[in-house]
Amino acid sequence: MTTLYLHQTHHALADFKAIYESLQNEASKHHDGLHLFPESYLCGYPLNDLCLNRNFLEKYLKLQHELDNFFGKQKPNQASFLVGGLDYVLAPGNIIEKIYNVIWHFRAGKKGEVLYRKRLLPNYDIFDEKKYFTNGHETKIWEFQDLKIGLTICEDMWPGTFHSEELDPILDLQKTCLEKKIALDLVVNLSASPFNIGKKEKRLARASEISKLLNAPFAYVNRIGAEDEILFDGMSFVMKGNDTLLECKSFAVDTKSIDLEKVKAKLPNDMAKSPSGNTWENLFKARLHTKTLTLKKLNADDCAEVFTALGFGLQDYAQKNKLQNFSVALSGGIDSALVLALIKLHLKPNQTVEAVFMPGHFSATLSYDLCLELTKNLGVPLKVMPIKFLHNNIKMQYKDVFGEDLTELADENIQSRLRGALIYTRSNAKNTMVLNTSNKSEIAVGYSTMYGDAVGALSLLGDLFKGEVYDLCHYINQNYNNVIPKILIERAPSAELRENQKDEDSLLPYPQLDALLEGICSGEFSTTELVKLGFSSIDVTKIYRLYENSEYKRRQFCPILKLKSKSFGFGHRIPISKHSLI
Amino acid sequence: MTTLYLHQTHHALADFKAIYESLQNEASKHHDGLHLFPESYLCGYPLNDLCLNRNFLEKYLKLQHELDNFFGKQKPNQASFLVGGLDYVLAPGNIIEKIYNVIWHFRAGKKGEVLYRKRLLPNYDIFDEKKYFTNGHETKIWEFQDLKIGLTICEDMWPGTFHSEELDPILDLQKTCLEKKIALDLVVNLSASPFNIGKKEKRLARASEISKLLNAPFAYVNRIGAEDEILFDGMSFVMKGNDTLLECKSFAVDTKSIDLEKVKAKLPNDMAKSPSGNTWENLFKARLHTKTLTLKKLNADDCAEVFTALGFGLQDYAQKNKLQNFSVALSGGIDSALVLALIKLHLKPNQTVEAVFMPGHFSATLSYDLCLELTKNLGVPLKVMPIKFLHNNIKMQYKDVFGEDLTELADENIQSRLRGALIYTRSNAKNTMVLNTSNKSEIAVGYSTMYGDAVGALSLLGDLFKGEVYDLCHYINQNYNNVIPKILIERAPSAELRENQKDEDSLLPYPQLDALLEGICSGEFSTTELVKLGFSSIDVTKIYRLYENSEYKRRQFCPILKLKSKSFGFGHRIPISKHSLI
Repeated sequence: MTTLYLHQTHHALADFKAIYESLQNEASKHHDGLHLFPESYLCGYPLNDLCLNRNFLEKYLKLQHELDNFFGKQKPNQASFLVGGLDYVLAPGNIIEKIYNVIWHFRAGKKGEVLYRKRLLPNYDIFDEKKYFTNGHETKIWEFQDLKIGLTICEDMWPGTFHSEELDPILDLQKTCLEKKIALDLVVNLSASPFNIGKKEKRLARASEISKLLNAPFAYVNRIGAEDEILFDGMSFVMKGNDTLLECKSFAVDTKSIDLEKVKAKLPNDMAKSPSGNTWENLFKARLHTKTLTLKKLNADDCAEVFTALGFGLQDYAQKNKLQNFSVALSGGIDSALVLALIKLHLKPNQTVEAVFMPGHFSATLSYDLCLELTKNLGVPLKVMPIKFLHNNIKMQYKDVFGEDLTELADENIQSRLRGALIYTRSNAKNTMVLNTSNKSEIAVGYSTMYGDAVGALSLLGDLFKGEVYDLCHYINQNYNNVIPKILIERAPSAELRENQKDEDSLLPYPQLDALLEGICSGEFSTTELVKLGFSSIDVTKIYRLYENSEYKRRQFCPILKLKSKSFGFGHRIPISKHSLI
Repeated sequence: MTTLYLHQTHHALADFKAIYESLQNEASKHHDGLHLFPESYLCGYPLNDLCLNRNFLEKYLKLQHELDNFFGKQKPNQASFLVGGLDYVLAPGNIIEKIYNVIWHFRAGKKGEVLYRKRLLPNYDIFDEKKYFTNGHETKIWEFQDLKIGLTICEDMWPGTFHSEELDPILDLQKTCLEKKIALDLVVNLSASPFNIGKKEKRLARASEISKLLNAPFAYVNRIGAEDEILFDGMSFVMKGNDTLLECKSFAVDTKSIDLEKVKAKLPNDMAKSPSGNTWENLFKARLHTKTLTLKKLNADDCAEVFTALGFGLQDYAQKNKLQNFSVALSGGIDSALVLALIKLHLKPNQTVEAVFMPGHFSATLSYDLCLELTKNLGVPLKVMPIKFLHNNIKMQYKDVFGEDLTELADENIQSRLRGALIYTRSNAKNTMVLNTSNKSEIAVGYSTMYGDAVGALSLLGDLFKGEVYDLCHYINQNYNNVIPKILIERAPSAELRENQKDEDSLLPYPQLDALLEGICSGEFSTTELVKLGFSSIDVTKIYRLYENSEYKRRQFCPILKLKSKSFGFGHRIPISKHSLI
């Protein structure tokens, strides 16, 4: 009996010691069969410039050498390891000429061997593979024991019209099979495929399509890990036609196995079909109801996914950067409340979290009461550090020095910046990680103060529109005993930086704003097209202006955990200096 | 007589109205001859995601339509315009399928016509052309009147081993000429080629090489403009063999012309040569004397270039973002003094600049005296806003709230953050642009306080090591009447955030630090190789650790005017979360 193993495991980028040990450990179990590890398992993903770094190169070559040694010395057995990694082509002096993104084959008694080079290199949004990698040109049908296995890496399964090359590695596999009269027993895909809301269904649908097309089961093993803003969710699986034969956890280390005999049994013949167009473009649809002009709500499943994703992203960042204490500046508003709840509900036993409320002249008493209630519900210590006196002092000193009153925007922003400075004072004193509390609606229109409420090591909510912040709060309250006070959720959002300030007075009512921003940020529509959809021309102009004029703020923003196909951050590359496009 | 015109002009990205008018204006002069405009003149460069933006697309297509209309209606004449631009391939619904980076040909009585598609797409460092563009596959020898002209765009002249394709558009042109027995009269290159120190010589050397290789004069027209961090310096030229026949200004609008008869006369036959290897890789050499382990000094020419580049970058950013007043936080140290001098010496009549000195408990009296002397020399108003009392208040309040003293790093950083908040208060009140004052040595090791001295809209010195800051100060003093006080230059650098603090106590003496950092940041050496060069292993380990652990600070840094081939900013893409590489 031969077994198929999906190893969905997790190490920091370039943690070569841990990576070596994990493979050594698996190999030492002498479990016969086919062991699949994710794309770029040998180094981590995405590396960006790290793969050009000469220290990285030295250590990577050393890892390869050590793996060759280890496997080379083992007594031959029936275990094969397919592991994603790099293949460097070097000129004398170890000058990098080319890098391929490949599948390595390790087995006892042999050195590592490259089986397959990734053909379709993703180069859109957060992906820059063509900056670093050279693509392979050949399909590969690999013979393992008595099996014929089609090999692919990640993007190979996602051809689409936006790729500048017209290349479909899946159809090429099909063609090769027809030409050489080969019946595949299995198709393998090693992936490092980022999470976004609803992506799981799209992956499974595409896997099913490929399985039918190639008339073979499809084994998919995906990386887990949070790499700054990018989340890898795992959820590795084996699919045959419409049936999921095996499925790994999301955002968790998981190894699952299945008898290959069971897997390879043929599909009913009439299932082999041509692709239905379930490709790359479908991943990038705006989350917009174009008839009602409303943002699609996060349903309970989406919220559960997002809740897990944010907890994982937070914890993985903290662990990789050796941080175990967290600070949040609470305002009495919904965003900071949600951030605090997310931290506390994912807190590990050796970690601490602390909330700091920093009331100013315009903070309502209710804000304090709500902070108190929230932190009591969550069991989080609350410190109160007023900024009123500091604010007064600055106003006096400013008038002294500059001979005029501090008013309006300058007076509003200094309050926010005092809070930014104070929360970081606490962070420095206690070595805590400060979590940013801005949401995507605010970030999109520049409704935040740089070096003020825009501070933080990491943003949890920066890819969620305000309406989705509410969705997630309701989800948490339903599942965690109403920890977020109802009044806090229901009160009108305000920055409390001047008398009677309400967000909606400066912007639009959030449901309208969110829908319009999704229309803009998705990149799917021009402003003319948004007006044709039914958005008010005045609103579109006003909000688009705010959007394009706040690029300078986003440039200095912290990493934002990515939950959508289009997000602010590394995949959003818009110049600051430019002529208006409206 | 036919004339060759180099139009080295300048508009904001996507300022289609100005771009249209500039072409209309030139065409209306009815100057017969060949008019060359830079790469991507029709839209600006680099666009990054802007070229995928649907508003951008609509406006760009409108521009093309208007140009077709305008030129189409003109009475035929002898003027031809070669203009860099985009060529969109669209599916129904204006879905972008491909974008080519092309040379458009406009002439009276005709619609615009694509003559050539860029073949070699730069995709390293700040360049991401393969993310957006599809490359052309053909060389082009264009017949203009009785002339045979070889067409190229920017990178086509810079083949090199790091390009993942083995493609040399210049050698391909040579091959085509041999095969078809064509003698070229001219080679044209439309460029958008970023400035860096010493690049001019490399461009001229390569142009001379190409001119000899193809046995024809080489006309090069380059963009000017500051696009956030990226500076385009112009310096367009015509070169024949070793002779520069025509040369435009650096960092300034300039149109120059020359009689084509003079240009096209043949080179002496024995000049035709094969390339000497003066290619892409040479642009990326570390500025390091590897024998003495010292950073190469900026000589007077370098300093003059850098002085002009920084002034241009500052002014262009200000103009494009509609800012005309500047603020600088002065410390009494050399970096902020240099920033202030750079602003003042490039200030335009309708602009203002103001210095703010914010002394704390550890600021020396000498610091104030030096700020006073500097601002007097420069004729810049100085405001003094002490932070001592605010700092005291925060210390007291902190102890009240948290029950412990504010000490060490937290106490140091709050001073810096108060200054960051206060300079931005002034910025908000007067709508001024705050200039960052950190240098590259500090940024490389994280020797700055986030939201403190790291604030700013733009960094002028972020690509200059500390030693180069000195070089530039000496240059300014020599050429501008010793405006920077000598004592200010000579005193030991200090952040003045604790008693008797000196930068060198935390780091290394700056000359050693700078050399080591250039070794690290250039990407040319691993740490093992740096030790082999002769750097102390202890120093290398210590500084590399600081470098790799401060990535999170650089992620939130403002745009840094790029002066070197390797700089922090958009071309530096290193993950924050990663295992140490040392």
